[in-house]
Amino acid sequence: MDMSYVKKLKCLLCGTEYGSDEVKYNCPNCGDEGVLEIIYNYPEIKKVFNQESLIKNQEYSMWRYLPLLPVDDPTKIGPSKVGWTPLYEAKRIREDLGMPNLWIKDDGRNPTASLKDRPSAIALVKAQELGEKIVTCASTGNAASSLAGAAASVGLKSYIFVPQTAPSAKIAQLLVFDSTVFAVKGTYDEAFDLSIEATREFGWYNRNTAFNPYMVEGKKTVALEIIEQMSFEVPDYLFVPVGDGCIISGVAKAYKDMFSLGFINHLPKLVAVQAEGCKPIVEAVNSDGEVKFVEPNTIADSIAVGIPRNRLMAVRDVKESKGFGVAVSDKEILEAIKYLGTTQGIFAEPAGSTAFAGMIKALQEGIISKNDKVVVLVTGSGLKDVESAKKAGGRALIIDPTLEAVKEIIN
Amino acid sequence: MDMSYVKKLKCLLCGTEYGSDEVKYNCPNCGDEGVLEIIYNYPEIKKVFNQESLIKNQEYSMWRYLPLLPVDDPTKIGPSKVGWTPLYEAKRIREDLGMPNLWIKDDGRNPTASLKDRPSAIALVKAQELGEKIVTCASTGNAASSLAGAAASVGLKSYIFVPQTAPSAKIAQLLVFDSTVFAVKGTYDEAFDLSIEATREFGWYNRNTAFNPYMVEGKKTVALEIIEQMSFEVPDYLFVPVGDGCIISGVAKAYKDMFSLGFINHLPKLVAVQAEGCKPIVEAVNSDGEVKFVEPNTIADSIAVGIPRNRLMAVRDVKESKGFGVAVSDKEILEAIKYLGTTQGIFAEPAGSTAFAGMIKALQEGIISKNDKVVVLVTGSGLKDVESAKKAGGRALIIDPTLEAVKEIIN
Repeated sequence: MDMSYVKKLKCLLCGTEYGSDEVKYNCPNCGDEGVLEIIYNYPEIKKVFNQESLIKNQEYSMWRYLPLLPVDDPTKIGPSKVGWTPLYEAKRIREDLGMPNLWIKDDGRNPTASLKDRPSAIALVKAQELGEKIVTCASTGNAASSLAGAAASVGLKSYIFVPQTAPSAKIAQLLVFDSTVFAVKGTYDEAFDLSIEATREFGWYNRNTAFNPYMVEGKKTVALEIIEQMSFEVPDYLFVPVGDGCIISGVAKAYKDMFSLGFINHLPKLVAVQAEGCKPIVEAVNSDGEVKFVEPNTIADSIAVGIPRNRLMAVRDVKESKGFGVAVSDKEILEAIKYLGTTQGIFAEPAGSTAFAGMIKALQEGIISKNDKVVVLVTGSGLKDVESAKKAGGRALIIDPTLEAVKEIIN
Repeated sequence: MDMSYVKKLKCLLCGTEYGSDEVKYNCPNCGDEGVLEIIYNYPEIKKVFNQESLIKNQEYSMWRYLPLLPVDDPTKIGPSKVGWTPLYEAKRIREDLGMPNLWIKDDGRNPTASLKDRPSAIALVKAQELGEKIVTCASTGNAASSLAGAAASVGLKSYIFVPQTAPSAKIAQLLVFDSTVFAVKGTYDEAFDLSIEATREFGWYNRNTAFNPYMVEGKKTVALEIIEQMSFEVPDYLFVPVGDGCIISGVAKAYKDMFSLGFINHLPKLVAVQAEGCKPIVEAVNSDGEVKFVEPNTIADSIAVGIPRNRLMAVRDVKESKGFGVAVSDKEILEAIKYLGTTQGIFAEPAGSTAFAGMIKALQEGIISKNDKVVVLVTGSGLKDVESAKKAGGRALIIDPTLEAVKEIIN
């Protein structure tokens, strides 16, 4: 068994440091808000992970970045091909918007069609390293289906908590992956609390965001890829959809890792994008940083999170980056779905198009300018929420099978 | 403009050869059944495409095989990353079935989540080379959404004909890609005929299977990848779901290409798998080769094709390969969805799991044996047909957000 380059797990609140065998979830002193951060031994990593090793590396998946991941036993890595999703130069959108330096990362191209396959792949490695047989999480849907798929692929059992309102495609995925699915009569926030209780009661391995300290590490691989796909050029702004705030902290961590290793010499400004009907992080980063809980009300189910579990880290990361927050309406989110599909053939779910909608808004309001170097993160596929896609997309024309019927419409 | 290595287009029926500028669709002499095959200049291809060039090739997409594709102007290649989908060694399935030499190719991992992105990408290159502005096709759904996505990504307009019964996810995709969607009150077969009529009437560029001669060339890239991913080892059997019969001919073409180029020294046996409720090709290959048309009746919409347009070529290819046909029930197709999800975390649509169901059946019936080298092709993602997935998957447990509710179920 190789051991990872993880040096310590450090509490975001009290700063206490733990060895990886001393703690499983959050800081024992600080409770829920005491999210742990993973600290690496960068000088040792540099010896095996550098420009030269990357050029030779033929592994085109998230495991390309293994030395930067909390994996003690690489034999526990699951079989699904996660990561190395396309970063598009988005030529037609560049031309349409007059933005010559725009990139779009399509992370809907993962095994279960969302970015969440990255952290879930890490969760299954950790669960197996610990000898666990059952994994669990609470999720708006994507973390759930990714965890269930990853568990199935290595033969572990999964118990999943989702709000009863999760889109049916996400629930169907869970069931095909043979999860036991608890559709909770309540919000994601209630499902989250219940899953923690059940974890304590039954001793399952829990993957919840900002509870399991390793999830940020999985999520950061999306930005490690962006960095390499952009040949180590750093964008001015990176637009990220925010629910719990774990993805945006993953993006921050990737850039900090690569900065620590000398691949890049500065960091991008991170822009947190949320829906108007659920924007606690946006309000916090645009003001004094205090996060006020809300009742979510948005079509973007994946980011309908009223109590953002990774709030402290996310707000810190956006503020440190000199970034900001933008909120967009559900209408703007649906328009962004249609725009991404129509101009670039990218089919995003509502949360997946949210960052793009936020970028458009920031551009219209003059917060960013057309020549800025901008990356937009699309986090999930539109196939996961067809009902919303239908609202974005328009209508099919039902016709008799005759040429006359076609002619009538064309002319 | 580079010119492709296409030498001639040759009619399957009468053998007449045409230059690529002499003909657009089927053989003018033979009509509908006169499907054209693309003949390459292999000696010239060998100069630029060989073991050495492949090792150096950093393009991990279908365009990796550019010298073997009918592309005259590579600047017309669209931006979406198509192909280089994972070939899984499927360890858990190998163990469960006692088949140590089983591989599964998951082609649901394409931009619009089906194999059809490959031929559609070729169609858009050809359309642009000809200066066309509008593309069209008839489709059970996947060819449609792939064509629409590819067209959107390069700024062409698409008019799409689907049977009104196509799954709603596929129609939603079309609309997000801004297609004009004709949902025809009739079968796929009627939609097909109507699209040909409309093509003649309006002069659009048509991508229909076994009408546009280049589609087999796009489809073959799935097997070019399999060949390379298996390090040029040839399986004993390759299981392929069959509707029109164009994918299986693509697979045959890939192996013939690689044989002609000296990469491999024999060809695999091709197994055509269809649903019990629609098995004209299976019956033909298992008997005298004559294809009798049927009224389709199966849950596997993508292969619900009663009049297989590429029937002659498909039957020839299976027979030449010394392969055979297998038909599976809708129940077996749904069981295969669940099995692939549960054991390997692969989420297939009904047609996508059909080949796997056929492999199980052939194994049970002793037509193949456990030690045979077998590749199974999964052609589309389960997210494209959630209603069927629900039938395969079981039910979520709706609970109050209390630990007691969880306990009641667990205990």
